[in-house]
Amino acid sequence: MLADPPAARNLAVDRERLWSTLMETARFGGTLKGGIRRLALSAEDGQVRDWLRAAAEQSGYACSVDDLGNMYIVRAGRDGARLPVAMGSHLDTQPTGGKFDGVLGVLAGLEVLRTLDDAGIETEAPLCLVNWTNEEGSRFAPGEMGSGVFAGEVDRGFALSRTDGDGISVADALAAIGYRGQERCGERRFAAMIELHIEQGPVLEAERVDIGVVVSAKGQIWFNGVVAGIEAHAGTTPMPLRKDALLAFAEFALAVEGIANAEAPAGVGTIGVVTVGPGSRNTVPGSVRFSLEFRHSDQARLEAMRTQALDAARRISRARGCDIVIEPIWSKDPVRFSPQVADVIRASASGLGLSNRPMVSGAGHDACAVAMKVPTAMVFVPCKDGVSHNEAESATPDDCANGANVLLHSVLALAGVAAK
Amino acid sequence: MLADPPAARNLAVDRERLWSTLMETARFGGTLKGGIRRLALSAEDGQVRDWLRAAAEQSGYACSVDDLGNMYIVRAGRDGARLPVAMGSHLDTQPTGGKFDGVLGVLAGLEVLRTLDDAGIETEAPLCLVNWTNEEGSRFAPGEMGSGVFAGEVDRGFALSRTDGDGISVADALAAIGYRGQERCGERRFAAMIELHIEQGPVLEAERVDIGVVVSAKGQIWFNGVVAGIEAHAGTTPMPLRKDALLAFAEFALAVEGIANAEAPAGVGTIGVVTVGPGSRNTVPGSVRFSLEFRHSDQARLEAMRTQALDAARRISRARGCDIVIEPIWSKDPVRFSPQVADVIRASASGLGLSNRPMVSGAGHDACAVAMKVPTAMVFVPCKDGVSHNEAESATPDDCANGANVLLHSVLALAGVAAK
Repeated sequence: MLADPPAARNLAVDRERLWSTLMETARFGGTLKGGIRRLALSAEDGQVRDWLRAAAEQSGYACSVDDLGNMYIVRAGRDGARLPVAMGSHLDTQPTGGKFDGVLGVLAGLEVLRTLDDAGIETEAPLCLVNWTNEEGSRFAPGEMGSGVFAGEVDRGFALSRTDGDGISVADALAAIGYRGQERCGERRFAAMIELHIEQGPVLEAERVDIGVVVSAKGQIWFNGVVAGIEAHAGTTPMPLRKDALLAFAEFALAVEGIANAEAPAGVGTIGVVTVGPGSRNTVPGSVRFSLEFRHSDQARLEAMRTQALDAARRISRARGCDIVIEPIWSKDPVRFSPQVADVIRASASGLGLSNRPMVSGAGHDACAVAMKVPTAMVFVPCKDGVSHNEAESATPDDCANGANVLLHSVLALAGVAAK
Repeated sequence: MLADPPAARNLAVDRERLWSTLMETARFGGTLKGGIRRLALSAEDGQVRDWLRAAAEQSGYACSVDDLGNMYIVRAGRDGARLPVAMGSHLDTQPTGGKFDGVLGVLAGLEVLRTLDDAGIETEAPLCLVNWTNEEGSRFAPGEMGSGVFAGEVDRGFALSRTDGDGISVADALAAIGYRGQERCGERRFAAMIELHIEQGPVLEAERVDIGVVVSAKGQIWFNGVVAGIEAHAGTTPMPLRKDALLAFAEFALAVEGIANAEAPAGVGTIGVVTVGPGSRNTVPGSVRFSLEFRHSDQARLEAMRTQALDAARRISRARGCDIVIEPIWSKDPVRFSPQVADVIRASASGLGLSNRPMVSGAGHDACAVAMKVPTAMVFVPCKDGVSHNEAESATPDDCANGANVLLHSVLALAGVAAK
């Protein structure tokens, strides 16, 4: 890694320009409540992609598209033999998404390229800004699709054949907006990738820390659960003769909380969906259906959480005579990001005088897929109240610029600055 | 009260005839699953009413109808100056009701009259069999309508103007099936009333007791509840930073159980309806809406349950930073049945060699309304698994006959047997 020459050392992105591109592109799918509805490969996604390609070409960068619609914007380096250093995230949003989730990582990457142009700085290795296709998975499941196929984690044919609620396939949707490229997704190679993203959680804001250096991402186990009790008349069935499915569920929910609390803050456990049957004011509940998920940065602890939950289900089932069954439906191992790339991010943040701390991502990101193939890490910046996947999602111009500056200096450190 | 003469002492209803009338009338609104759908004042309700009137007139009894559609079938007594002793229940059912709820009390009353005819027994006081209109309240809310107006608990104009889902009023529905009578509901007077009913609960079956002597009915308080937490990303929000509305609700539900357990078996507490928002697998729940009801035979204890629930809500709200609010929406004081009538029922059951125990009704019944005006009590017989308001509702021919025999000897004791 080369030391920055003086011209690069004090370099900073244009805070106002970054903010104005965030606000300008937010009109593609912009909602009345100030959020964005820009589902993957929708007309609005096509519009923002066209905007990005035009911006790239205006600056003289090559823009390529692969057969999953991932967009690669390359700024040449002095040494064409070196692998590019990548910056990437996504421009698609949740159905009622915000202006920063994903978008910040792509537009900050564009701002990094523009800042280097303005300063007349050439890097040794090329830089590559990537807009990964369909990170959200809202229109076409699963998410992290473009990055997943790139990393070999998701099968290309499977991904292209996924359909939306109207039966339109990913392949057809790509063609409809003109983003079904020729390049075979996954053939391109990178020296490293950094994804800048809002935290989507409350930690940085609560601790008043500028930058999260994301060293890993939590693994997850998802379950579907069912409690089977016995429906009974609420007026005529004495308490000792009841098999109340809701009460067994309540006890299990608190057991899940206890399991997760014991693993805090690295572990979390959440029951988000609950359906109580038959759902009559005067009937003792006979059934509860629910979702359960655990996340942990450590695979062994994640497995321990699963075991403890199964134990709790058995114990409560026995004690209450209500059968609690939880069935795993999906899991994903924790991702360890590149310590080298994370070190570069930490050093860049510290060099800029920004407070920083190591973090574990609780959410999935394109970086989690890409990390399977390319040395990768992430930069987090605070977002208001930790709110995300919501039109109220908010981040400050300063925090966005801080993140972009860390991204800038990190890719400069990884790519090297060419001597004039 | 006169001692039974020998002819009456060994009298018993015709078990097979009672069962066959139960099965025969079950065809009016009979469902494929063996239940009955006979909503109040529907065509099917009209059919079973016509059947009852024809059966009464065939035996030479007068059948009158009041302006709420309540049917009064009178078997004359020797002493026309005495007030009649009434037996009553209802022939309407839940939308997917069973063959016994209400129906047993009316048809057993008919069987009592027929048994007296067969034995040539005259009573001192007249007997009156009543079919009360719209006990269930499924088509027209509220239930216990005919008995409620009779007792002065429900306003006549209010009751007649209630409409069903199609906008048809009770007054119009009565006229449509020919049961809008001239008699003013509530003018008729009774010496006493006994309602025979299936328990609709599991106690008699569990304890292998033949007869429940119902001495009171539980009072009720209904609440609507809301828990307000904060929605958050399930992956990125550490446990200590969450305000999980579902977990606060779970703790409250178990507190309600504790409050009710401490009052068992006289007190019960039930949460039957639960809605968790936003209902996403990956989102920490921000809200829970729920129903809550307490029932107790003792008004002071019912109030204590309310107070304890409010205390629990406050305590859990404080501890978890999630606001739990419960708002009372309806209440009904406990009903104390006539100890004299209950004594007669107990003595009759014991005299027949039937095991019996005092009981508190957890459900509402016509008898609860009539008791406001007439010395009243109830007879319970077991039903299978305590299941009711369900097409699977079931009672045995023996239990039905046991109940009818207790009814027979109780009304004989109350009305007196005329010397030949």
